[in-house]
Amino acid sequence: MHDGTHTTEPGQALYPADRLEQARTATARAGLDALLISPGADLRYLTGYDALQLERLTCLVLPADGRPFLVVPALEEPAALASPARGMGLEIVAWNETDDPYALVAERLPAPPARVGVDNHMWAEKTLAFHRVLPGARQELAGAVLNELRLRKTPAEVAALRRAGAAIDRVHARMGEWLRPGRTEREAGRDIAAAITAEGHARVDFVIVGSGPHSASPHHELSDRVIRPGDPVVVDIGGTTPDGYCSDSTRVYAVGEPPVEFRRLYDVLLRAQRAQTEAVRPGITAEELDAVGRDLIAEAGFGAYFIHRTGHGIGLESHEEPYIVAGNALPLAPGMAFSVEPGIYLPDRYGARIEDIVVCTEDGGERLNATPRDLVVLS
Amino acid sequence: MHDGTHTTEPGQALYPADRLEQARTATARAGLDALLISPGADLRYLTGYDALQLERLTCLVLPADGRPFLVVPALEEPAALASPARGMGLEIVAWNETDDPYALVAERLPAPPARVGVDNHMWAEKTLAFHRVLPGARQELAGAVLNELRLRKTPAEVAALRRAGAAIDRVHARMGEWLRPGRTEREAGRDIAAAITAEGHARVDFVIVGSGPHSASPHHELSDRVIRPGDPVVVDIGGTTPDGYCSDSTRVYAVGEPPVEFRRLYDVLLRAQRAQTEAVRPGITAEELDAVGRDLIAEAGFGAYFIHRTGHGIGLESHEEPYIVAGNALPLAPGMAFSVEPGIYLPDRYGARIEDIVVCTEDGGERLNATPRDLVVLS
Repeated sequence: MHDGTHTTEPGQALYPADRLEQARTATARAGLDALLISPGADLRYLTGYDALQLERLTCLVLPADGRPFLVVPALEEPAALASPARGMGLEIVAWNETDDPYALVAERLPAPPARVGVDNHMWAEKTLAFHRVLPGARQELAGAVLNELRLRKTPAEVAALRRAGAAIDRVHARMGEWLRPGRTEREAGRDIAAAITAEGHARVDFVIVGSGPHSASPHHELSDRVIRPGDPVVVDIGGTTPDGYCSDSTRVYAVGEPPVEFRRLYDVLLRAQRAQTEAVRPGITAEELDAVGRDLIAEAGFGAYFIHRTGHGIGLESHEEPYIVAGNALPLAPGMAFSVEPGIYLPDRYGARIEDIVVCTEDGGERLNATPRDLVVLS
Repeated sequence: MHDGTHTTEPGQALYPADRLEQARTATARAGLDALLISPGADLRYLTGYDALQLERLTCLVLPADGRPFLVVPALEEPAALASPARGMGLEIVAWNETDDPYALVAERLPAPPARVGVDNHMWAEKTLAFHRVLPGARQELAGAVLNELRLRKTPAEVAALRRAGAAIDRVHARMGEWLRPGRTEREAGRDIAAAITAEGHARVDFVIVGSGPHSASPHHELSDRVIRPGDPVVVDIGGTTPDGYCSDSTRVYAVGEPPVEFRRLYDVLLRAQRAQTEAVRPGITAEELDAVGRDLIAEAGFGAYFIHRTGHGIGLESHEEPYIVAGNALPLAPGMAFSVEPGIYLPDRYGARIEDIVVCTEDGGERLNATPRDLVVLS
């Protein structure tokens, strides 16, 4: 069910059993008394359990000084027991439909906490409910402890991201099947979504098909606009593989020959994106890497049209730390994985973005996407 | 882009422009100074904007006494402007990559608030960031104001749920194409997911295919178990239509003739589910409706094996109020829409669940799923 979760070589597991102990130590070091982790990437990172985010409380409780336990609704108990969480030395505590699971957590904590770290993505209804049953506990973000651990990927995680990259590359390689004049973005998008699943993802995370003037809106998704001859089309797609890791890659297609000025814009962008992927190495800071592309684009006169950061970290989430953005002085280090995706957008005319996932290695960077970055002219 | 968002008859729009004013009045009545609404169902309900939930802050700010505004990252601004939010009399305020959007919200509020309602699903990182910039504001749940509004669906919303019900019915009607001995749950699940999209949903929300003993785990999803002759198979599926409304329906299939004792269990369940759908009418409370099925199942000796509530509300979310559960004394009223889905689960043997969406009408209930509820024996 969770492909790649366990391998025969110890130390190579995607979800190793010592994560909880690592996190417990980091929690104690941060001066927090416990972490409260709800369904999502942190829970999966720590236990391998890919739980549903629902109104009923599922929560991993990780005391700095005590045994961790996983509170689950009774009807999720079989799913929790079927997950890798079972082998993690956790106690699994099921609650029934009319129980108060928040009170249950408060009662089972070894001592009333003074500081708790709540999951960065915990819903407010749950955060406030924990505040009610633990009124003496100051709530902080669990991410302050966990992001540090998640930031540097293990070799098994890099291998999982490599598989995700290859899967999304297979989708881009087939784009000529779907992008054709006369079809709408939505029609093409449906085919692309089906291919994301068919090519090895468990879930489609997003499908952006921005054609013609829509290519100038970075987070445009799909519309009923009909693709026309000569349109530039930005295709930014990603999904999550069965073992939980995400893909994300953007390529630009032209359906027939695009305007000459678009080619000029694209050449500037391609040069910037190449320079940035080649600049990845341990020690360069996130903001320095951002500047490498931004400066080149500004020199070519498009500075005002690169309206977003260079990239975001990727792993169990599509967007996570490190963010490659001005103001982030974090030095890159081996194992960090992130997107490099500069873009140039001329409002109401057209735009372009080129995106690869790159992992920082001991002496440089490894690109996880291998489809050609040149403008692909589909005939 | 948002099918059905606007129709030509005033008063019949799915996302009417007076929602913000209704919500503002309700906010003032509840004694809250402002609501802070993040991407998700509440934002879509109030503005029609189907925003991405991301690390960058998108937030509708609805002061009890002042003009509402929508804070969006600069690169989401075109998407926000292309959404129905543009026609709602909102100011759209874009922030740039290196701005502090929380400080921006605090500065633009008409006065320092004493009580704010935060979106029930707002991420903790955002809830705590608002606490930082609004230290004098007590945080409560926006749901206390908005759930009341969302609970009773308008005729346009009921029509949208009817379309969603018909879409998922079309998938169930084709189940014989995919459930066959020798195929795995995962293989069948992939085909079903593709059909959910093909039959009129924009997004697949969940696909549960529980075959043989897996049918006894209510929230089992998909596994590599091979479906065998005589297996009962519980198929619980749902998606979201392009206009934002959700479907959710469960049917039970037998791939070849199932065990005789399974038939007996199924007949009890079918009787209970029929009695419950027929008992829906204004005035009956949620817990009374739950008891209608629970009592029948208990009388037949299966009481200990109906381990979850009868159902959940449905609309812009798969699970929302009203919950049909013991302890909920809410009287049902016209326009409330919810699932009626009793189940009986014999651990490690087999189980069954039958689920329809029902809307409470002026004098009874309307079932929105119309596929036969009898056990479907596929040959």
